[in-house]
Amino acid sequence: MGGCARPGGTAHPVVLDAMGGDHGPAETVPAALAAHRDHGVPVVLVGRTGDVHRELRRHGGAGEVEVLHAGEVVPMAERGAGAAARRDSSLVVGCALARRRNAALVSAGSTGAVVTCAVRAFGRRAGVLRPALAVALPTPAGFTVLVDAGGTADPTAEMLAQFAVLGASYARNALGVPDPSVGLLSIGTERGKGNRLAREAAELLPGMPVRFHGNVEGHDVLSGRVDVIVTDGFTGNVVLKNIEGCVRTTLDMVAAAGIAPPGRLAEVARLYTADTHGGAALLGLAGTVVVGHGSSRATAIARACVVASELGAAERPVPADGRASVGPVA
Amino acid sequence: MGGCARPGGTAHPVVLDAMGGDHGPAETVPAALAAHRDHGVPVVLVGRTGDVHRELRRHGGAGEVEVLHAGEVVPMAERGAGAAARRDSSLVVGCALARRRNAALVSAGSTGAVVTCAVRAFGRRAGVLRPALAVALPTPAGFTVLVDAGGTADPTAEMLAQFAVLGASYARNALGVPDPSVGLLSIGTERGKGNRLAREAAELLPGMPVRFHGNVEGHDVLSGRVDVIVTDGFTGNVVLKNIEGCVRTTLDMVAAAGIAPPGRLAEVARLYTADTHGGAALLGLAGTVVVGHGSSRATAIARACVVASELGAAERPVPADGRASVGPVA
Repeated sequence: MGGCARPGGTAHPVVLDAMGGDHGPAETVPAALAAHRDHGVPVVLVGRTGDVHRELRRHGGAGEVEVLHAGEVVPMAERGAGAAARRDSSLVVGCALARRRNAALVSAGSTGAVVTCAVRAFGRRAGVLRPALAVALPTPAGFTVLVDAGGTADPTAEMLAQFAVLGASYARNALGVPDPSVGLLSIGTERGKGNRLAREAAELLPGMPVRFHGNVEGHDVLSGRVDVIVTDGFTGNVVLKNIEGCVRTTLDMVAAAGIAPPGRLAEVARLYTADTHGGAALLGLAGTVVVGHGSSRATAIARACVVASELGAAERPVPADGRASVGPVA
Repeated sequence: MGGCARPGGTAHPVVLDAMGGDHGPAETVPAALAAHRDHGVPVVLVGRTGDVHRELRRHGGAGEVEVLHAGEVVPMAERGAGAAARRDSSLVVGCALARRRNAALVSAGSTGAVVTCAVRAFGRRAGVLRPALAVALPTPAGFTVLVDAGGTADPTAEMLAQFAVLGASYARNALGVPDPSVGLLSIGTERGKGNRLAREAAELLPGMPVRFHGNVEGHDVLSGRVDVIVTDGFTGNVVLKNIEGCVRTTLDMVAAAGIAPPGRLAEVARLYTADTHGGAALLGLAGTVVVGHGSSRATAIARACVVASELGAAERPVPADGRASVGPVA
């Protein structure tokens, strides 16, 4: 995904929620060190300094990255307003710091909590109706960006049309696709097929500043037919999790048939884990935010930090007139 | 899936649209013979008698099954009202015949065309708000019924609640599950998670006469966690096609890694084709209707005939008060 920032370069800074995710500092601290050592990304770790410094020492990284104290932790089950109310939490403090320093934010905390806190801290870019989550899915041809993967469960057609522009911009900045094609997820390729929302969005998309391919179907999500697939956050989240389950079940069935060594099958499974796709980017905010899977290990979080740094560099400066950058909406 | 009707028994009769599907009589005729010879299902073939009798002779089955002439063919690209207007088509004539004889209808024609023509011919069961398509998906534990897989793209919460009852009835009748558990597809397991429609349906489902498990997520579609998964026809159709594409891509990646023989991988792929799951059942009508995949070959269509015959036997007689049979809706 895109080029990597190198040690010694002037990579865009990243604030990492050290307490986020199922494993906390045990994984976020080595992730921060890896992003810094291998890719030159300046990472600030925000969380309980006692825990963070101990992990830093354990990995021989004392004094190597900046640490900011935040005494509270947002539990993984916490969402939305509950998380935002924890003002001393690593997530809320981290969001505020990232905003002050114009740094990218990375967290493997609960997606709902990160979305709520990030939207409050950064605000939406001017003209953007709602934020959307973008995930890069591996296909035989490269990657396809699925947007919205769960940011906005009940968008309007106008929001979907904006997601197309946000997703295309992400494909350019994070994946280096020069002129991304955009498909609308529906239940038939003919215009006019779909539910009410998809039919309305199909009317708006040809007027947006993207290369609109037309409708695509469920079997195109991993086929590589288009670079960006636009859908509502409900369908997108169901599809994303369906892929995870489907890859697992398919590989289990191959393993059960005894026709391939399990270790080698794990290599294929790994293609569809957070370790490789670098987390979900929260698009449409006046700041760069990447949400890692709660179960992420250090490799995945380090990757998310590198992607966030690259995105932050590509997206800066935020245009004064955000409306123009997401294109006209009928 | 359930027990098979045996030669010599009094299997429920089936009307088969001989011209439906990508391959027409070349596949439907041997399918009808197989369903009759191997499972004792009395099949009536409806279509162009010249073509049908030629195929019957080619398979040594002249005079073995009944044939009814219908001169017109609904093209696979035709949908809805256009199909219903072709009054001499094998689909419209077949639907009328099935209704007259209280037989089950099987067609591998365009899903939209079959749904429209079948609804017009049979009508909905009393109290049923909208029909829904049910598909049995193989899981490590057996099968999970996905409903609605594309019948109604924009249902209300009341319709979703009825789909639960229809799907549970299908799991009992077609799969022999005595007390099926039903999950609502959403984007979080907690009640209150989901889009507007799912949240509303989650309020109604505990009051329906089904064993309601609560919300399930995209990764549960193939996990076997519940026997029936309820969703709207848009999400369901996207998920169904996503599974097809995902299984294909995963197996392609295994094949590309050179870690399993392609022939053996095809065995796994076959689990997710119409050949095994017997097509989609159109639930909620005053008659039994099974829709095969357009690309179905004889094996798949024969399987659909057997499933339709079993369902027709289990569903007869249609209760006078259909409302009671789908349960109360708030």
